[in-house]
Amino acid sequence: MLGKAFFADLEGIETITAPTQVAKLSEDYFRFSPILEPLLTGKVGDIVARPTNEAEVIRVAQVCVNHRVPLTVRGSGTGNYGQAVPLQGGLILDMTRMQTIKWIKPGAACVEPGVKLAALDKQAQEIGWESRMIPSTFRSATVGGFIAGGSGGIGSILYGQLRDRGNLRAVRVVTLEDCPRVIELRGDDVKKVNHAYGVNGIITELELPLAPAYAWAEFVVNFSDFMTAAQFGQALGNCDGIIKKMICILADPIPSYFTALRNYIPDRVHSALVLVAETDIEPFRELVREFGGSIAYKKSAQEASKGISLVEFAWNHSTLHARTVDPTLTYLQSLFPADPNLQLVREMCDRFKDEVMMHLEFIRMNGVVIPAAIQIVRFTTAERIQEIIQYHESHGVLIANPHTYILEDGGMKAIDRNQLAFKQTVDPYGLMNVGKMRAWLGKS
Amino acid sequence: MLGKAFFADLEGIETITAPTQVAKLSEDYFRFSPILEPLLTGKVGDIVARPTNEAEVIRVAQVCVNHRVPLTVRGSGTGNYGQAVPLQGGLILDMTRMQTIKWIKPGAACVEPGVKLAALDKQAQEIGWESRMIPSTFRSATVGGFIAGGSGGIGSILYGQLRDRGNLRAVRVVTLEDCPRVIELRGDDVKKVNHAYGVNGIITELELPLAPAYAWAEFVVNFSDFMTAAQFGQALGNCDGIIKKMICILADPIPSYFTALRNYIPDRVHSALVLVAETDIEPFRELVREFGGSIAYKKSAQEASKGISLVEFAWNHSTLHARTVDPTLTYLQSLFPADPNLQLVREMCDRFKDEVMMHLEFIRMNGVVIPAAIQIVRFTTAERIQEIIQYHESHGVLIANPHTYILEDGGMKAIDRNQLAFKQTVDPYGLMNVGKMRAWLGKS
Repeated sequence: MLGKAFFADLEGIETITAPTQVAKLSEDYFRFSPILEPLLTGKVGDIVARPTNEAEVIRVAQVCVNHRVPLTVRGSGTGNYGQAVPLQGGLILDMTRMQTIKWIKPGAACVEPGVKLAALDKQAQEIGWESRMIPSTFRSATVGGFIAGGSGGIGSILYGQLRDRGNLRAVRVVTLEDCPRVIELRGDDVKKVNHAYGVNGIITELELPLAPAYAWAEFVVNFSDFMTAAQFGQALGNCDGIIKKMICILADPIPSYFTALRNYIPDRVHSALVLVAETDIEPFRELVREFGGSIAYKKSAQEASKGISLVEFAWNHSTLHARTVDPTLTYLQSLFPADPNLQLVREMCDRFKDEVMMHLEFIRMNGVVIPAAIQIVRFTTAERIQEIIQYHESHGVLIANPHTYILEDGGMKAIDRNQLAFKQTVDPYGLMNVGKMRAWLGKS
Repeated sequence: MLGKAFFADLEGIETITAPTQVAKLSEDYFRFSPILEPLLTGKVGDIVARPTNEAEVIRVAQVCVNHRVPLTVRGSGTGNYGQAVPLQGGLILDMTRMQTIKWIKPGAACVEPGVKLAALDKQAQEIGWESRMIPSTFRSATVGGFIAGGSGGIGSILYGQLRDRGNLRAVRVVTLEDCPRVIELRGDDVKKVNHAYGVNGIITELELPLAPAYAWAEFVVNFSDFMTAAQFGQALGNCDGIIKKMICILADPIPSYFTALRNYIPDRVHSALVLVAETDIEPFRELVREFGGSIAYKKSAQEASKGISLVEFAWNHSTLHARTVDPTLTYLQSLFPADPNLQLVREMCDRFKDEVMMHLEFIRMNGVVIPAAIQIVRFTTAERIQEIIQYHESHGVLIANPHTYILEDGGMKAIDRNQLAFKQTVDPYGLMNVGKMRAWLGKS
């Protein structure tokens, strides 16, 4: 499909054309969804380009525009909804070689998109700072991929979500115009490309705020009753005098899927996986006592930095571990409304029992601590998943559907006019991540 | 009244008996209240003791017990409700000479009660930390006085209030038993003496958590409409991606009382006094723009550290400045319920107009950002103040009445059984801060 001239024009840029490798670099974790799997399996690019700097990105952009070749940007491919899967072949732009940390200073950092979150934190921690939030895939995930395809994660209990004003300071993006430009977006303008799956510009640099790096102790606290565990999570979230980075509440049998933690998790318990500032352990223990929890696992920040971290059992890593044991399992993503009694959490548990295993992640949203949820679902049919989603939504639980690769059908729920307008400017030929933006599909 | 034997027993402890000095050290800022003023004027101790260490405190305690002399503990006397005014004479225990910072490490500090908050912060900031919250009187106020008589302050928008679990780690207290002991209280046990006006034990050491020290930029933002300023305050409070330490919203004419800021505050404006992390100024400006505010004053952390700080125009310093211009003014202290629309704030403004000038301080309470208020009131009669309080309370606004020196009639609203039980143990003769604890009055 791609002609000789196209390849010639890419001369000097590292490319990959070996089909196995290209196929591998066309994938993400969409197999978490039995609905996406048949839709995305076999969707592969024709070539992978691996630029090392912005100048090379501009060259690739120019070549794709000249030849009208679809271009799909990707980081490490740790997304779960096919965000980075090319639907119509073309060029995969693998950003993982752009790993320069341009600068780090107290409170902020400027990085190329291929910098891994773990690498950023390692360097930031040397001056006492760290990322405000990271995904459970922080070891392999890139900053650019996290911004373009993620929403929040470990740290969201302190700083809210990536989309919140202040959590992304500036981006540089390369356009796919006849003559590709570099545009810098600062302030509220970053919304144009934030969480846009790379449909409207190639991010080549990001400026991010940093958070003070506490020493985070890690705890597993077990409870005999799920709602007590959930209430503990809410109470810890609301405890302004206890600094915490992660509050993950898992209903039985989810913790039993974690082979590496088997020694700490007896049968039939509900577990809280918590990261709390070491200096706040004493009041944290008081809270645990108040809720009748049992501390089964405790690592100091020092110990946790050496071995496994509970971070890699929370957020979507819970689903990953569960699917390792039982590959038929799938998942949902939800936001429950603020409610001190967690009534809707209880209702959903009662209604769906083990079909929808509850997994809460407490986060701050617009200043209020709410339970987000990444429920693990025993899959039967696509219709049943739809039924479960509709039941939640009709009861006021927002579902960020992970069974679609369409940008607006996930968490956004509505067409973002800003993002669409920006795409019209920077991607006039509609070459970027083709087929992912409903607003554009409607237009063309 | 005090016999020679009493004085002899105090030999070796620094004491003050000169009536003018004793009178001065018997006062706090109760004159903010025209209701307290007649009740407390002339209430003076007989002698002031100024211990330099815990051993001396124990000696003084023993002497007071032996002679059954009332003992009233005080820090710098910056309280506003006569917390430290002796109602039945006796000995004033001035703790301001106990100024040793025992240790500071990342995240925590241990101090003697007479350490000034400014001194603690100066030393903590050298290792990148600072107090989680400070009062507007931080330059002169002591740590012990803040804990025993305060509730929160600048920093409460991040860490809640002093009473919240985690914000006071441990205290050592000397008892007034026949044989005075030193008791260490840790964890939830600190509640026994936290905000207890020194009725049940002499605090001789405090362990406090610290907060990461951001560089705090200072802003005055003016608005032409008060409710817009208030909504801006709530929105900034809810902005999880913007780190701030103080959100003070002042209705016209309060800002006009601030002579030192006259150049930045035109007539008939409503002002927001804000401390925001320097690294978050850019998104902060976006929020200001969204609400149509006008930035009239901006100082970097560096500049603010040298001259005046906006901290000294917020919280109860607002009242102080207003009363400098018009000494007939008094004030109220309130907690408004969480409400995104601030409907009750609007109602109270509409109802009372300039009689009750609105002054909001946004704080986090149980994980939620709410407006506390320190309204400035044009005083007419005690009955009218009572009427205003009742109107607020009947509409769901909690008033922490600053016109009473009784512990339970202020912010607590209920007898604290823990504090009472602890008093029964440590102060069996009822010598400590006599007449301040209603529960004890009822008993005796």
